[in-house]
Parts: sequence; structure tokens; C-alpha cells
Amino acid sequence: MLELFVLAPEAGVAFYFRTAPMKFKAISGSITSPLGFSASGVFCDIKKLGTGKGSNKGQKKDLALILSEKEASVAGLFTTNQVCAAPVKVCVPKAAIGKGRAIVVNSGNANACTGKQGMKDAIEMAKVTASVLGLKESEVFVASTGRIGVPMPMANVSKGIFLAAQNLGSTPGHGSDAEQAIMTSDSKPKEIAIEFKLGGKTVRMGGICKGAGMIQPGMSPTGKRPASIPLHATMLCFITTDAAISHKLLKQALNESVALSFNRITVDGDMSTNDTVLAFANGMAGNKSIASTNGADYKAFLTGLQHVSLELAKMIVRDGEGVTRFVTVKVSGAKTFADADAAARSVANSSLVKTSWFGGDPNWGRILDALGYSAATIVEEKIDVGYSLPGNSKVLYSLKKGQPTTASFSELCKAVAPREFDLHINLNLGRSRAWMYSADLTEEYVEFNKGDVTDPSSLGG
Amino acid sequence: MLELFVLAPEAGVAFYFRTAPMKFKAISGSITSPLGFSASGVFCDIKKLGTGKGSNKGQKKDLALILSEKEASVAGLFTTNQVCAAPVKVCVPKAAIGKGRAIVVNSGNANACTGKQGMKDAIEMAKVTASVLGLKESEVFVASTGRIGVPMPMANVSKGIFLAAQNLGSTPGHGSDAEQAIMTSDSKPKEIAIEFKLGGKTVRMGGICKGAGMIQPGMSPTGKRPASIPLHATMLCFITTDAAISHKLLKQALNESVALSFNRITVDGDMSTNDTVLAFANGMAGNKSIASTNGADYKAFLTGLQHVSLELAKMIVRDGEGVTRFVTVKVSGAKTFADADAAARSVANSSLVKTSWFGGDPNWGRILDALGYSAATIVEEKIDVGYSLPGNSKVLYSLKKGQPTTASFSELCKAVAPREFDLHINLNLGRSRAWMYSADLTEEYVEFNKGDVTDPSSLGG
Repeated sequence: MLELFVLAPEAGVAFYFRTAPMKFKAISGSITSPLGFSASGVFCDIKKLGTGKGSNKGQKKDLALILSEKEASVAGLFTTNQVCAAPVKVCVPKAAIGKGRAIVVNSGNANACTGKQGMKDAIEMAKVTASVLGLKESEVFVASTGRIGVPMPMANVSKGIFLAAQNLGSTPGHGSDAEQAIMTSDSKPKEIAIEFKLGGKTVRMGGICKGAGMIQPGMSPTGKRPASIPLHATMLCFITTDAAISHKLLKQALNESVALSFNRITVDGDMSTNDTVLAFANGMAGNKSIASTNGADYKAFLTGLQHVSLELAKMIVRDGEGVTRFVTVKVSGAKTFADADAAARSVANSSLVKTSWFGGDPNWGRILDALGYSAATIVEEKIDVGYSLPGNSKVLYSLKKGQPTTASFSELCKAVAPREFDLHINLNLGRSRAWMYSADLTEEYVEFNKGDVTDPSSLGG
Repeated sequence: MLELFVLAPEAGVAFYFRTAPMKFKAISGSITSPLGFSASGVFCDIKKLGTGKGSNKGQKKDLALILSEKEASVAGLFTTNQVCAAPVKVCVPKAAIGKGRAIVVNSGNANACTGKQGMKDAIEMAKVTASVLGLKESEVFVASTGRIGVPMPMANVSKGIFLAAQNLGSTPGHGSDAEQAIMTSDSKPKEIAIEFKLGGKTVRMGGICKGAGMIQPGMSPTGKRPASIPLHATMLCFITTDAAISHKLLKQALNESVALSFNRITVDGDMSTNDTVLAFANGMAGNKSIASTNGADYKAFLTGLQHVSLELAKMIVRDGEGVTRFVTVKVSGAKTFADADAAARSVANSSLVKTSWFGGDPNWGRILDALGYSAATIVEEKIDVGYSLPGNSKVLYSLKKGQPTTASFSELCKAVAPREFDLHINLNLGRSRAWMYSADLTEEYVEFNKGDVTDPSSLGG
């Protein structure tokens, strides 16, 4: 069973319950699993650390290519940070048109806060890729992650693109190479692939992503923040599918999926300059192209895309910098969705709540405190707070109607001891609900992010 | 010279520049320095840790009394957290009337999230104090700080009030006893006293406060959040003066002072359930009572109160949990005050910016990132970022118009190495400005706040 979801208003749907059995199965692989997609990941020394002549041995891959044999419908969502990286600026108009063949992605340099040269470099990356692959520049999307404020080492990048083009292939290993190339502070690769039926045809969908720090995305298709998108990684995510679907419906399905997944995660509450999700659908599965939200096909496609997006988004939180605990904050009973969202984000981003999770401390006072200073309307005497294992309906309450229950301290400690648990908060004021996927705040996070003052090139990053 | 200040709109003044020479001098002491005030601080085991029969030796004081010989004008500001402690609820209507004689304060228990019993206990604290000191219950204000969600140990509290009443005195030591009694995770006492002239008469003003964690106050006189008060300690502050001033003007002066001081600090971005500032003015200096904002007397009084509030507020940030660096975030050139405030708070609360301060890393990419996701309108290509020693006009810029300057990495590292520095951010879009007093995020903060799961009584706190 798929869990029930609540859609954010920016996705055009206030509530969305899905209790149908999952109609898809997990398969091995990632972005190269759908028909017609190839990928590669190579090392081209974007950080210019030097490698010894001709030897890349032991160096982390830092440039990826993803290519579709045929023109694909494309949809994208981008950071709403006003300080927005050059590759995002290059992609927004292309995603609005909604057609494409390839994506070039680098790690090690975000190409953010790099001025006019940065824009030239992002466009040059698309041009070089197009020229090497025999495409038009307009068919190539660009994404970057890494240090902020450092000019792109274009000679190395161009070499990397040539090398990556030579290495393109469609095995699961090629998808993994691309995934490794986009990772920065990630400790683990994040990839997924599924298979499901559309109109009798088997279609495949795969995805890769990276995250780790500067994670609380708030993405929109235009990179502009609608009033309804709450404020607050670099996270990059690339999803491929061989399903046939119109650009318009792919865009709608991606909006709905991201509203429930990437836009509902937080590691440290900082929204990046580079957040990007791109979905490519090349139609090579041969299904009848989905052209309406009515009917089973769109629903099946949406279910698949939601699953892929949510699983990748959760991987980002689980692998967040220094993270030892993954907590799903489930707020219900709010008067409005905006209240539910504000309440969930306030708890999910409170330094004091997050440090208590790290300590395995079932502290409810800090939770009430964070609810109380949120923009949500709450009434202390009505709030229930409880814990369960992920997705489990057996909730152990520490508070009912604002008052401590008879649950013992040791029982509550056990409830917050697992690496993953759900935090249930019922405001008991209405019927709106919202979830946030969050993590603890640890000494390792601080240690990792306090910077390396021996490295001048880290200035912006 | 006093530095220039910018008032928040909630104080009714958009800009406020004060460059007149300081008209007051620092004196030793605190709340007992003004004529007619006595204080005490005692240990009564509010945490009920046990003390061994009859022996308080080595135990931290946990109950304070402050008494004015004569009826004083009173003004107060209180947390706007919707989860608001019982003593705050008891004080709000009393502060609105604006007359009082005494304050009873305890540490170790916040009397928050304690339901109806909590309200009874807060009122009982005022009643017991009134009865011991021969006052009316309406003349006694109450404040608490400590664990959330634990019932008040009223037998111990009552014993404490009797003991504190016996120990009242007017020496600086008595003020310090009261200060020690209100401290929780504070590592240092925070007290100040000044002397200045009003209409030829010498008047005195003194203050004590406590802070350390759960610090980003947003206080209002009613405990209700006006739209203009930005969202986001327990901090308690008690200010006494022997100046004569009407309740109405004391309230206005306190609003203006808190808008520039306590409401502009952050340690961890969490706003407490108990934040309280109370000012008592008993008129015993014999000046002609200030009854109008026109004229030199109100201005002199306001200048003094602003100085006392700001110095105490800064002490709270400097002594924040785990703090190693104190940073004044000075945003200028914003289109509106709301923009300036949102920009300053976003930078002052960013986990990534705060960890870079801990590391002594002059990272400007994270600063631009935090500005970009704030609610403020910004234009990346217009932003200047620089550093100076506190209050120093010599600014070393790392960014001008969004682009790195020629300042070397080692120069920039030196600029962020001091324990205290100013961060200058000019948005170059308008004339509005706002400051925030902030601190770094350290491993010690995480270690301190991860909780003690061997202590069930810490559940709420």
C-alpha cells in the first residue's frame, strides 16, 4: 500500500489520498533502465586539484551526461532562491518549452554567483555537449553543484564532456557512473528504477539524485516563488522514463510529485542556489501518449513519479550531513494547509527539537515551543504529540490535549531510539494536514560545515 | 558616542539616529543601585534534587525577589509564542495597568504547559509574596524559567519566598544574588547599572537578565504578535530605575528599547514560552515626573534605557549556549524595513552561515544563499558584503556588487577571526536598514542540547 499523501496548494490540489495497491515494481538500475537512455560519469578535475599527468586513478567522478535517443518531453522545477545559479537560469526557459535530448551535469563547482562569465560558461557547456553529441544547443539542459563563487574551469569541463560522450552506455553501471559524478558531500549513491503498465505496455522510470547539505528546497517551474511556496539543498534530481506523455502533463505530474517530496524535505533549513529536478519522457515504451488527467494512465504515471520522487527525496534526508535520525513530522488537525505546513516546518527546522532527536530525548516541550512560535494558529490545550515506527498506525502519545499522558519516560525513549520514526502532531483544530521529512542536528554536521580555512578555493561554497 | 540605531516599525518609529555623546555613566551594581530597590536570591530546591537535610551548601540559587519601597510605574513585554507560560499570562494584565511593587522569579521550572494547575501556582506565587511582604497580590509580578511541562513544587517555592523576603537588601551583592537565582544554562551573570541626570537630579537605572538557549525573542506588550513583529529564548530581564516617569511613557520607552535590543538577538532561532522584560520606575530620585516625549528628559531616559537593554541583550548572545563568536549582522540599503529585517534574520539564523563563523571561514556564498531565500527582495549583482571590528568604520569587503573583491583569503580570514566582529551587508536597493545580534553554531551547542535521557524530569524542558 502506498501511504496517503497531502498535496500542497501550489500543486493545485489540497488533499490527495491514495490507498490503492502499488501498481509498479522495483527493478534494478536507475536513469538508464528506461528504453533509449544512456548515461556516463567521468572525472575531469573540476576542482583543479591536479591529478598527476594522465592519471585519474582514485579521483571522484565530477561530470555526467544523460542522453535520450529520441526527443523527450521535459519538465523541470528549479530553486526559488533569488540568488540563482547560471545553469538554472539557462534551464528555466528550456523547461518552459519542454523538449530535450540531453543533460550535462557537473559537481565541484556550482557556477553560482559567477556573473556574466558564469552565464557564458553555462551556455558553453550546453553548446559543447550539443556539438559533441550532434544535437542543437536548445536540446541540452545544464546543472551544476559544488562551490559557489568560483569561475568554471571550462578547459577541464570541455575535456570532461568529450570523455563523457565517449563513455555513454545503457547498463545500470552507466547510470551509477552518472550518479557518482553528481555527488558532493553525499556518502551514498541515490538511485531507483521501477516498472509499471500503461495501456497494456510496460514502461520504466528511473532516477538519480544528490543532496547532503543546504537542503530545504522550495522549487517552482519558473524559479520564481509563488506566494504559496513556503520559504525555505543543493539537491539535483534527474528522472527518466520511456513512457509517452505530453510536456504539459509531465509538468503537472512533476509539480504534484515534487510538492509531496523534494519540497517537503529539510536537512538544515538552507535553500540552495542550484536546486533542480528534471524529468525526461521519451515515449519509447510505445504506450499511447498520455494526454489527459482523466483516466487510469495519468494516475498510474503520477503514482509512479510520486514514488520515485519521494524515495529519492527520503534518501537525501537519510544521507544528510551528519544525520543519525530520520523523522517524518506529520501534522494533522490544522485549520488550513498553510497552518499545517508552517507548523510542520517550524518543528522540522527547530535547532532545539533537532538536537533532542540526536540525543534520543522524547522532549515534547521543545515541540510545543516550536509550534507556538510558528505562523500556524495553535491552541496549546488541544495538541496531541506522539510517536510511531515509520508508517505504523500504533502511536505512543506523550501528550494528549496539551497534557502529559501516562506513557513512561522509558517507553517514550524507546519510541525515539530507532534511526527512523514518525512524529505525530494533531492540532485538533481542523482537517488540514502536512508532512515534513527531517533529520537530527548533530556535532558531525557542525564539524563538517565549519569550513576549511586552509583552502582559499572554498570561499564561496 | 552611542552608535546609530534603527527602530522597528512596531515601536512606531522607522528610523532613529542618535549620535549625541552618551549622557550617562556606568556605575557598579545592578537592580539594587537605584534608590528604594532591594533584592535577594536564595536556594529552595525547585528542581527537587534533594540537598541533604538543612544544607544548601554548593546549591545554585533558584528564587529571586525584587522589591520597590514605593509604588512604581511598570511596563512589560512578553513572548508572542502561542504556547505561553502561566506567569506570562499572570503578568500581561498587570503590566497593562502598569503599577507594581515586587517581582518574584524562579529558575529550574518554567511553569509552561502546566495547564490550570500552572495558572493556580503562578497566582499563588504572587499571593504568597504579597502576604509575606505586606503587599496586594495585584502589586506582585511573577516570572519563571526552566523546564517545560513539570508542575511547580509549590511547597519548596513558598519556603523560598519566605527565605528570600528575609534576605532582602540593597547592596550590589543583593542584586547579584537575584541575578544568580534567575540563571539557568548561563555561564556568567549579566548585570549593569548606570547613572544620568534628569532635570538636574541624578537618577539611576539597573538591570539583570538571563538567556543562553531558546533565544530569538519576539516580544510585545500584550503577548500577542502584531503582524509587524517578526516571528521568532527563554530570556528574562528586570530593569529598575528611581526616575519618575508615567506608566504610559515608560511603556513607550521600553517598547522602543526592546525593539532595538532583545527583539533583535538570536542564538538558535527558537522563541521561548517565557520571555519577559519588566521595567520598574519608582520615582525616588525626585526628578519632575516625565510626562511627555517632547523635551530633553524623555530623550535622556530613553537613551539610558536603550543602553541598558542593548548591553544586557548583547550579554545574552555572547553567553549563548556553546557560543564562541558574536556577530552583528548589519543590513543596509534594503527597499523596506521588512526587507532589511528579513534579510538580517535569514543570515543570522542560517545553520550554514553560523557554522562557517564557528570555523572562522569568511564564506560569502552561504551569506548570499541565505539572503536569496529570505523574504527580502534582493538583487545578487548589487550586494556588498564586508567585515569590520565591532563599530569600526573600516570595512574589508569580500564582495562588491555581487563579485569577489581583491581582498585576499588570508586578509578575510583575519577579519572573521576575532571573537566579535560586524558583518556588513549592503543590498544597494534602498535606504532601509536593520541589525541582528547573532552567534555561531558550535558542536558544544549540539552536545549541550541533545538532552539527558537518564533524567525523566527533563521531558519538557
